Amino acid sequence: MSIQESRDLQRELVEPKKGAQTKRSIIEAALTIASKSGLEGLTIGNIAEAVKMSKSGVFAHFGSREELQVAVVREYYQRFQDLIFSPALLKPKGLPRLNQMIQSWIKMSTGDDSSSCFFIAGAVEFDDQPGIVRDELVRSVEDWRSAIRRGIQESIAAGHLKKSVNVEILLFQLYSIALGVHHDSRFLDNPKCLANANKLIKEILSSYKSN
Amino acid sequence: MSIQESRDLQRELVEPKKGAQTKRSIIEAALTIASKSGLEGLTIGNIAEAVKMSKSGVFAHFGSREELQVAVVREYYQRFQDLIFSPALLKPKGLPRLNQMIQSWIKMSTGDDSSSCFFIAGAVEFDDQPGIVRDELVRSVEDWRSAIRRGIQESIAAGHLKKSVNVEILLFQLYSIALGVHHDSRFLDNPKCLANANKLIKEILSSYKSN
Repeated sequence: MSIQESRDLQRELVEPKKGAQTKRSIIEAALTIASKSGLEGLTIGNIAEAVKMSKSGVFAHFGSREELQVAVVREYYQRFQDLIFSPALLKPKGLPRLNQMIQSWIKMSTGDDSSSCFFIAGAVEFDDQPGIVRDELVRSVEDWRSAIRRGIQESIAAGHLKKSVNVEILLFQLYSIALGVHHDSRFLDNPKCLANANKLIKEILSSYKSN
Repeated sequence: MSIQESRDLQRELVEPKKGAQTKRSIIEAALTIASKSGLEGLTIGNIAEAVKMSKSGVFAHFGSREELQVAVVREYYQRFQDLIFSPALLKPKGLPRLNQMIQSWIKMSTGDDSSSCFFIAGAVEFDDQPGIVRDELVRSVEDWRSAIRRGIQESIAAGHLKKSVNVEILLFQLYSIALGVHHDSRFLDNPKCLANANKLIKEILSSYKSN
Protein backbone atom coordinates (compact mmCIF):
# COMPACT_ATOMS: atom_id res chain seq x y z
CA MET A 1 0.00 0.00 0.00
CA SER A 2 1.36 3.45 -0.90
CA ILE A 3 1.72 6.17 1.73
CA GLN A 4 -1.09 8.06 0.03
CA GLU A 5 -3.39 5.02 0.13
CA SER A 6 -2.51 4.37 3.74
CA ARG A 7 -3.46 7.97 4.56
CA ASP A 8 -6.71 7.60 2.58
CA LEU A 9 -7.56 4.48 4.52
CA GLN A 10 -6.89 6.20 7.86
CA ARG A 11 -9.14 9.05 6.80
CA GLU A 12 -11.85 6.60 5.76
CA LEU A 13 -11.81 5.14 9.25
CA VAL A 14 -12.88 8.49 10.65
CA GLU A 15 -14.99 9.32 7.61
CA PRO A 16 -17.10 6.21 7.05
CA LYS A 17 -18.95 7.84 4.12
CA LYS A 18 -15.73 8.11 2.12
CA GLY A 19 -14.91 4.47 2.88
CA ALA A 20 -18.34 3.33 1.74
CA GLN A 21 -17.87 5.36 -1.45
CA THR A 22 -14.54 3.65 -2.25
CA LYS A 23 -16.10 0.27 -1.52
CA ARG A 24 -18.92 1.06 -3.91
CA SER A 25 -16.56 2.08 -6.70
CA ILE A 26 -14.64 -1.20 -6.23
CA ILE A 27 -17.88 -3.20 -6.48
CA GLU A 28 -18.92 -1.15 -9.51
CA ALA A 29 -15.66 -1.95 -11.31
CA ALA A 30 -15.92 -5.60 -10.29
CA LEU A 31 -19.46 -5.83 -11.71
CA THR A 32 -18.26 -4.50 -15.05
CA ILE A 33 -15.38 -6.99 -15.21
CA ALA A 34 -17.55 -9.93 -14.08
CA SER A 35 -20.28 -9.21 -16.61
CA LYS A 36 -17.64 -9.76 -19.30
CA SER A 37 -15.34 -12.42 -17.83
CA GLY A 38 -17.58 -14.04 -15.22
CA LEU A 39 -17.19 -14.01 -11.45
CA GLU A 40 -14.21 -16.29 -11.91
CA GLY A 41 -12.59 -13.66 -14.10
CA LEU A 42 -12.37 -11.33 -11.09
CA THR A 43 -8.96 -10.93 -9.51
CA ILE A 44 -7.84 -8.42 -6.92
CA GLY A 45 -5.25 -7.46 -9.55
CA ASN A 46 -7.60 -6.53 -12.39
CA ILE A 47 -9.97 -4.69 -10.04
CA ALA A 48 -7.08 -2.72 -8.51
CA GLU A 49 -6.07 -1.73 -12.04
CA ALA A 50 -9.61 -0.68 -12.94
CA VAL A 51 -10.04 1.55 -9.87
CA LYS A 52 -6.42 2.73 -9.96
CA MET A 53 -5.56 1.45 -6.49
CA SER A 54 -2.91 -0.94 -5.24
CA LYS A 55 -3.84 -4.56 -4.52
CA SER A 56 -3.39 -4.01 -0.80
CA GLY A 57 -5.69 -1.00 -1.06
CA VAL A 58 -8.43 -3.25 -2.46
CA PHE A 59 -7.64 -5.89 0.18
CA ALA A 60 -8.16 -3.29 2.90
CA HIS A 61 -11.82 -3.09 1.85
CA PHE A 62 -12.43 -6.78 1.14
CA GLY A 63 -10.52 -9.37 3.10
CA SER A 64 -10.33 -11.85 0.25
CA ARG A 65 -11.22 -12.41 -3.40
CA GLU A 66 -14.16 -14.60 -2.26
CA GLU A 67 -15.57 -11.84 -0.05
CA LEU A 68 -15.41 -9.46 -2.96
CA GLN A 69 -17.15 -12.01 -5.22
CA VAL A 70 -19.90 -12.41 -2.59
CA ALA A 71 -20.33 -8.61 -2.46
CA VAL A 72 -20.66 -8.58 -6.27
CA VAL A 73 -23.32 -11.31 -6.18
CA ARG A 74 -25.25 -9.35 -3.54
CA GLU A 75 -25.06 -6.16 -5.58
CA TYR A 76 -26.17 -8.01 -8.71
CA TYR A 77 -29.09 -9.52 -6.79
CA GLN A 78 -30.15 -6.02 -5.69
CA ARG A 79 -30.02 -4.72 -9.25
CA PHE A 80 -31.83 -7.78 -10.56
CA GLN A 81 -34.59 -7.11 -8.03
CA ASP A 82 -34.86 -3.45 -9.05
CA LEU A 83 -34.79 -4.20 -12.77
CA ILE A 84 -36.72 -7.44 -13.11
CA PHE A 85 -38.63 -8.32 -9.98
CA SER A 86 -39.93 -5.04 -8.55
CA PRO A 87 -41.47 -3.75 -11.84
CA ALA A 88 -43.36 -7.08 -12.11
CA LEU A 89 -44.97 -6.40 -8.73
CA LEU A 90 -46.77 -3.44 -10.33
CA LYS A 91 -48.65 -5.89 -12.56
CA PRO A 92 -51.78 -7.63 -11.24
CA LYS A 93 -51.21 -10.91 -9.41
CA GLY A 94 -51.40 -14.05 -11.54
CA LEU A 95 -50.51 -14.47 -15.22
CA PRO A 96 -49.82 -10.76 -15.94
CA ARG A 97 -47.18 -10.66 -13.18
CA LEU A 98 -45.69 -14.08 -14.04
CA ASN A 99 -45.48 -13.15 -17.71
CA GLN A 100 -43.79 -9.85 -16.93
CA MET A 101 -41.15 -11.55 -14.72
CA ILE A 102 -40.19 -14.10 -17.36
CA GLN A 103 -40.35 -11.71 -20.33
CA SER A 104 -38.15 -9.05 -18.81
CA TRP A 105 -35.65 -11.66 -17.60
CA ILE A 106 -35.18 -13.38 -20.94
CA LYS A 107 -35.02 -10.06 -22.76
CA MET A 108 -32.04 -9.09 -20.59
CA SER A 109 -29.71 -11.65 -22.19
CA THR A 110 -30.60 -10.81 -25.80
CA GLY A 111 -29.91 -7.86 -28.07
CA ASP A 112 -26.76 -5.96 -28.84
CA ASP A 113 -26.21 -4.57 -25.36
CA SER A 114 -27.00 -7.90 -23.71
CA SER A 115 -25.15 -8.80 -20.55
CA SER A 116 -24.55 -12.20 -19.08
CA CYS A 117 -26.98 -13.10 -16.28
CA PHE A 118 -24.86 -13.77 -13.18
CA PHE A 119 -27.44 -16.25 -11.93
CA ILE A 120 -27.11 -18.34 -15.11
CA ALA A 121 -23.38 -17.92 -15.76
CA GLY A 122 -22.51 -18.21 -12.06
CA ALA A 123 -24.40 -21.50 -11.80
CA VAL A 124 -22.07 -23.07 -14.38
CA GLU A 125 -18.95 -21.41 -12.99
CA PHE A 126 -19.57 -22.53 -9.42
CA ASP A 127 -21.47 -25.81 -9.72
CA ASP A 128 -18.31 -27.73 -8.87
CA GLN A 129 -16.82 -25.24 -6.41
CA PRO A 130 -18.15 -25.38 -2.86
CA GLY A 131 -17.67 -22.24 -0.77
CA ILE A 132 -19.16 -18.90 0.20
CA VAL A 133 -19.54 -17.63 -3.38
CA ARG A 134 -21.49 -20.70 -4.49
CA ASP A 135 -23.64 -20.47 -1.33
CA GLU A 136 -24.48 -16.83 -2.02
CA LEU A 137 -25.30 -17.61 -5.65
CA VAL A 138 -27.54 -20.53 -4.69
CA ARG A 139 -29.34 -18.31 -2.18
CA SER A 140 -29.96 -15.63 -4.83
CA VAL A 141 -31.10 -18.13 -7.45
CA GLU A 142 -33.41 -19.90 -4.98
CA ASP A 143 -34.94 -16.50 -4.07
CA TRP A 144 -35.60 -15.77 -7.71
CA ARG A 145 -37.05 -19.24 -8.27
CA SER A 146 -39.31 -18.75 -5.24
CA ALA A 147 -40.62 -15.57 -6.83
CA ILE A 148 -41.39 -17.43 -10.08
CA ARG A 149 -42.95 -20.30 -8.10
CA ARG A 150 -45.13 -17.79 -6.26
CA GLY A 151 -46.09 -16.27 -9.62
CA ILE A 152 -47.29 -19.70 -10.80
CA GLN A 153 -49.18 -20.40 -7.55
CA GLU A 154 -50.88 -17.00 -7.69
CA SER A 155 -51.87 -17.67 -11.32
CA ILE A 156 -53.55 -20.89 -10.17
CA ALA A 157 -55.19 -19.15 -7.20
CA ALA A 158 -56.47 -16.37 -9.48
CA GLY A 159 -58.02 -18.99 -11.77
CA HIS A 160 -55.68 -18.06 -14.66
CA LEU A 161 -54.04 -21.49 -14.72
CA LYS A 162 -55.58 -24.93 -14.12
CA LYS A 163 -55.53 -26.33 -10.58
CA SER A 164 -53.93 -29.51 -11.98
CA VAL A 165 -50.74 -27.67 -13.06
CA ASN A 166 -47.60 -29.26 -11.62
CA VAL A 167 -45.93 -26.16 -10.15
CA GLU A 168 -42.41 -27.63 -10.00
CA ILE A 169 -42.53 -28.86 -13.60
CA LEU A 170 -43.81 -25.53 -14.91
CA LEU A 171 -41.09 -23.73 -12.91
CA PHE A 172 -38.50 -26.09 -14.43
CA GLN A 173 -39.93 -25.47 -17.89
CA LEU A 174 -39.86 -21.66 -17.63
CA TYR A 175 -36.42 -21.57 -16.02
CA SER A 176 -35.07 -23.89 -18.74
CA ILE A 177 -36.41 -21.60 -21.45
CA ALA A 178 -34.50 -18.70 -19.87
CA LEU A 179 -31.35 -20.85 -19.88
CA GLY A 180 -32.03 -21.67 -23.54
CA VAL A 181 -32.40 -18.02 -24.54
CA HIS A 182 -29.20 -17.08 -22.69
CA HIS A 183 -27.40 -19.93 -24.52
CA ASP A 184 -28.75 -19.40 -28.02
CA SER A 185 -28.50 -15.63 -27.93
CA ARG A 186 -25.06 -15.23 -26.36
CA PHE A 187 -23.25 -18.36 -27.53
CA LEU A 188 -24.91 -19.20 -30.86
CA ASP A 189 -25.68 -15.58 -31.79
CA ASN A 190 -29.15 -16.66 -32.85
CA PRO A 191 -31.31 -13.53 -33.15
CA LYS A 192 -34.51 -15.59 -33.58
CA CYS A 193 -34.35 -17.26 -30.18
CA LEU A 194 -36.23 -14.56 -28.27
CA ALA A 195 -39.20 -14.68 -30.66
CA ASN A 196 -39.18 -18.51 -30.54
CA ALA A 197 -39.02 -18.50 -26.74
CA ASN A 198 -41.89 -16.01 -26.48
CA LYS A 199 -44.00 -18.11 -28.83
CA LEU A 200 -43.23 -21.18 -26.77
CA ILE A 201 -44.03 -19.51 -23.42
CA LYS A 202 -47.36 -18.34 -24.83
CA GLU A 203 -48.17 -21.86 -26.04
CA ILE A 204 -47.17 -23.47 -22.74
CA LEU A 205 -49.18 -21.06 -20.60
CA SER A 206 -52.17 -21.35 -22.98
CA SER A 207 -52.10 -25.14 -22.66
CA TYR A 208 -52.26 -24.76 -18.87
CA LYS A 209 -55.03 -22.16 -18.85
CA SER A 210 -58.21 -23.00 -17.02
CA ASN A 211 -61.23 -22.95 -19.32
CA MET B 1 12.98 -28.00 -20.26
CA SER B 2 15.18 -30.46 -18.39
CA ILE B 3 17.96 -32.38 -20.17
CA GLN B 4 15.91 -35.56 -19.76
CA GLU B 5 12.84 -33.97 -21.33
CA SER B 6 14.90 -32.53 -24.15
CA ARG B 7 16.23 -36.05 -24.84
CA ASP B 8 12.69 -37.47 -24.67
CA LEU B 9 11.50 -34.88 -27.17
CA GLN B 10 14.35 -35.67 -29.56
CA ARG B 11 13.50 -39.37 -29.31
CA GLU B 12 9.85 -38.61 -29.99
CA LEU B 13 10.83 -36.86 -33.22
CA VAL B 14 12.26 -40.15 -34.53
CA GLU B 15 9.63 -42.25 -32.73
CA PRO B 16 6.32 -40.58 -33.62
CA LYS B 17 4.34 -43.23 -31.71
CA LYS B 18 5.94 -42.22 -28.44
CA GLY B 19 5.19 -38.54 -29.20
CA ALA B 20 1.55 -39.33 -29.91
CA GLN B 21 1.38 -41.24 -26.64
CA THR B 22 2.70 -38.27 -24.62
CA LYS B 23 0.27 -35.98 -26.42
CA ARG B 24 -2.59 -38.30 -25.52
CA SER B 25 -1.63 -38.41 -21.86
CA ILE B 26 -1.51 -34.59 -21.80
CA ILE B 27 -5.01 -34.41 -23.33
CA GLU B 28 -6.22 -37.06 -20.88
CA ALA B 29 -4.98 -35.03 -17.89
CA ALA B 30 -6.42 -31.84 -19.37
CA LEU B 31 -9.84 -33.50 -19.79
CA THR B 32 -9.87 -34.50 -16.12
CA ILE B 33 -8.94 -30.99 -14.97
CA ALA B 34 -11.44 -29.32 -17.34
CA SER B 35 -14.32 -31.56 -16.28
CA LYS B 36 -13.85 -30.17 -12.77
CA SER B 37 -12.69 -26.58 -13.33
CA GLY B 38 -13.94 -25.88 -16.85
CA LEU B 39 -11.91 -25.25 -19.99
CA GLU B 40 -10.95 -21.91 -18.50
CA GLY B 41 -9.49 -23.73 -15.50
CA LEU B 42 -6.83 -25.27 -17.75
CA THR B 43 -3.36 -23.80 -17.52
CA ILE B 44 -0.15 -25.15 -18.97
CA GLY B 45 1.05 -25.11 -15.34
CA ASN B 46 -1.58 -27.36 -13.80
CA ILE B 47 -1.43 -29.80 -16.72
CA ALA B 48 2.38 -29.97 -16.50
CA GLU B 49 1.98 -30.78 -12.82
CA ALA B 50 -0.60 -33.49 -13.51
CA VAL B 51 1.55 -35.26 -16.13
CA LYS B 52 4.79 -34.59 -14.25
CA MET B 53 6.43 -32.64 -17.05
CA SER B 54 7.87 -29.15 -17.22
CA LYS B 55 5.79 -26.34 -18.72
CA SER B 56 8.10 -26.15 -21.73
CA GLY B 57 7.67 -29.91 -22.17
CA VAL B 58 3.90 -29.39 -22.51
CA PHE B 59 4.48 -26.39 -24.80
CA ALA B 60 6.58 -28.59 -27.10
CA HIS B 61 3.42 -30.61 -27.84
CA PHE B 62 0.90 -27.76 -27.95
CA GLY B 63 2.03 -24.37 -29.14
CA SER B 64 -0.33 -22.47 -26.84
CA ARG B 65 -2.95 -22.84 -24.13
CA GLU B 66 -5.66 -22.18 -26.75
CA GLU B 67 -4.40 -24.98 -28.99
CA LEU B 68 -4.50 -27.36 -26.05
CA GLN B 69 -8.05 -26.23 -25.20
CA VAL B 70 -9.08 -26.84 -28.82
CA ALA B 71 -7.56 -30.34 -28.65
CA VAL B 72 -9.54 -31.01 -25.46
CA VAL B 73 -12.80 -29.86 -27.09
CA ARG B 74 -12.09 -32.18 -30.07
CA GLU B 75 -11.39 -35.12 -27.79
CA TYR B 76 -14.54 -34.42 -25.78
CA TYR B 77 -16.56 -34.25 -29.01
CA GLN B 78 -15.19 -37.66 -30.02
CA ARG B 79 -16.13 -39.18 -26.67
CA PHE B 80 -19.55 -37.54 -26.74
CA GLN B 81 -20.13 -39.11 -30.15
CA ASP B 82 -19.08 -42.56 -28.91
CA LEU B 83 -21.08 -42.32 -25.70
CA ILE B 84 -24.23 -40.47 -26.69
CA PHE B 85 -24.64 -40.19 -30.42
CA SER B 86 -23.40 -43.50 -31.89
CA PRO B 87 -25.48 -45.75 -29.54
CA ALA B 88 -28.59 -43.79 -30.57
CA LEU B 89 -27.93 -44.71 -34.22
CA LEU B 90 -28.61 -48.35 -33.27
CA LYS B 91 -32.22 -47.37 -32.47
CA PRO B 92 -34.80 -47.19 -35.29
CA LYS B 93 -35.07 -43.80 -37.03
CA GLY B 94 -37.68 -41.45 -35.63
CA LEU B 95 -38.89 -41.10 -32.05
CA PRO B 96 -36.96 -44.10 -30.64
CA ARG B 97 -33.66 -42.59 -31.83
CA LEU B 98 -34.55 -39.02 -30.81
CA ASN B 99 -35.63 -40.19 -27.37
CA GLN B 100 -32.44 -42.16 -26.87
CA MET B 101 -30.26 -39.17 -27.83
CA ILE B 102 -31.94 -36.82 -25.36
CA GLN B 103 -32.32 -39.34 -22.54
CA SER B 104 -28.69 -40.44 -22.53
CA TRP B 105 -27.49 -36.83 -22.78
CA ILE B 106 -29.50 -35.51 -19.83
CA LYS B 107 -28.64 -38.57 -17.74
CA MET B 108 -24.94 -37.73 -18.16
CA SER B 109 -25.14 -34.60 -15.99
CA THR B 110 -27.07 -36.21 -13.14
CA GLY B 111 -26.20 -38.73 -10.47
CA ASP B 112 -23.27 -38.99 -8.08
CA ASP B 113 -20.60 -39.50 -10.72
CA SER B 114 -22.01 -36.77 -12.97
CA SER B 115 -19.59 -34.73 -14.99
CA SER B 116 -20.07 -31.28 -16.44
CA CYS B 117 -21.04 -31.29 -20.13
CA PHE B 118 -18.33 -29.32 -21.96
CA PHE B 119 -20.89 -28.21 -24.56
CA ILE B 120 -23.08 -26.65 -21.86
CA ALA B 121 -20.39 -25.32 -19.53
CA GLY B 122 -18.16 -24.20 -22.42
CA ALA B 123 -21.03 -22.19 -23.92
CA VAL B 124 -21.20 -20.04 -20.78
CA GLU B 125 -17.43 -19.84 -20.35
CA PHE B 126 -16.79 -18.70 -23.92
CA ASP B 127 -19.91 -16.77 -24.95
CA ASP B 128 -18.04 -13.50 -24.48
CA GLN B 129 -14.61 -14.66 -25.65
CA PRO B 130 -14.04 -14.74 -29.41
CA GLY B 131 -11.24 -16.98 -30.64
CA ILE B 132 -10.34 -20.49 -31.75
CA VAL B 133 -11.66 -22.21 -28.61
CA ARG B 134 -15.09 -20.61 -28.92
CA ASP B 135 -15.14 -21.42 -32.66
CA GLU B 136 -14.37 -25.09 -31.98
CA LEU B 137 -17.02 -25.24 -29.26
CA VAL B 138 -19.66 -23.64 -31.50
CA ARG B 139 -18.80 -26.13 -34.27
CA SER B 140 -19.22 -29.07 -31.88
CA VAL B 141 -22.47 -27.76 -30.41
CA GLU B 142 -23.89 -27.01 -33.87
CA ASP B 143 -23.02 -30.58 -34.95
CA TRP B 144 -24.85 -31.99 -31.96
CA ARG B 145 -27.83 -29.70 -32.55
CA SER B 146 -27.91 -30.82 -36.21
CA ALA B 147 -28.14 -34.42 -35.01
CA ILE B 148 -31.10 -33.57 -32.73
CA ARG B 149 -32.71 -31.53 -35.53
CA ARG B 150 -32.31 -34.54 -37.87
CA GLY B 151 -33.87 -36.74 -35.16
CA ILE B 152 -36.93 -34.47 -35.10
CA GLN B 153 -37.17 -34.33 -38.90
CA GLU B 154 -36.92 -38.12 -39.15
CA SER B 155 -39.65 -38.45 -36.50
CA ILE B 156 -41.89 -36.30 -38.67
CA ALA B 157 -40.97 -38.24 -41.84
CA ALA B 158 -41.65 -41.55 -40.07
CA GLY B 159 -45.10 -40.29 -39.09
CA HIS B 160 -44.25 -40.33 -35.37
CA LEU B 161 -44.66 -36.59 -35.00
CA LYS B 162 -47.17 -34.22 -36.66
CA LYS B 163 -46.15 -32.54 -39.91
CA SER B 164 -47.09 -29.20 -38.34
CA VAL B 165 -44.33 -29.42 -35.70
CA ASN B 166 -42.06 -26.36 -35.70
CA VAL B 167 -38.67 -28.09 -35.84
CA GLU B 168 -36.65 -25.13 -34.53
CA ILE B 169 -38.97 -24.57 -31.59
CA LEU B 170 -38.95 -28.25 -30.60
CA LEU B 171 -35.15 -28.28 -30.89
CA PHE B 172 -35.00 -25.18 -28.66
CA GLN B 173 -37.39 -26.84 -26.21
CA LEU B 174 -35.41 -30.09 -25.92
CA TYR B 175 -32.05 -28.35 -25.74
CA SER B 176 -33.37 -26.01 -23.03
CA ILE B 177 -34.54 -28.98 -20.97
CA ALA B 178 -31.02 -30.42 -21.13
CA LEU B 179 -29.66 -27.06 -19.93
CA GLY B 180 -32.25 -27.12 -17.14
CA VAL B 181 -31.26 -30.60 -15.96
CA HIS B 182 -27.56 -29.67 -16.00
CA HIS B 183 -28.39 -26.56 -13.93
CA ASP B 184 -30.77 -28.10 -11.40
CA SER B 185 -28.75 -31.25 -10.88
CA ARG B 186 -25.26 -29.78 -10.64
CA PHE B 187 -25.92 -26.35 -9.17
CA LEU B 188 -29.09 -26.82 -7.10
CA ASP B 189 -28.40 -30.46 -6.20
CA ASN B 190 -32.01 -31.28 -6.98
CA PRO B 191 -32.28 -35.06 -7.32
CA LYS B 192 -35.85 -34.84 -8.69
CA CYS B 193 -34.95 -32.89 -11.81
CA LEU B 194 -34.21 -35.90 -14.02
CA ALA B 195 -37.58 -37.48 -13.29
CA ASN B 196 -39.34 -34.13 -13.86
CA ALA B 197 -37.46 -33.60 -17.12
CA ASN B 198 -38.33 -37.08 -18.36
CA LYS B 199 -42.00 -36.56 -17.54
CA LEU B 200 -41.92 -33.24 -19.37
CA ILE B 201 -40.19 -34.65 -22.47
CA LYS B 202 -42.78 -37.42 -22.62
CA GLU B 203 -45.62 -34.89 -22.36
CA ILE B 204 -44.12 -32.61 -25.00
CA LEU B 205 -43.50 -35.39 -27.51
CA SER B 206 -46.98 -36.84 -26.84
CA SER B 207 -48.57 -33.48 -27.55
CA TYR B 208 -46.77 -33.40 -30.91
CA LYS B 209 -47.61 -36.99 -31.88
CA SER B 210 -49.57 -37.53 -35.05
CA ASN B 211 -52.88 -39.30 -34.42
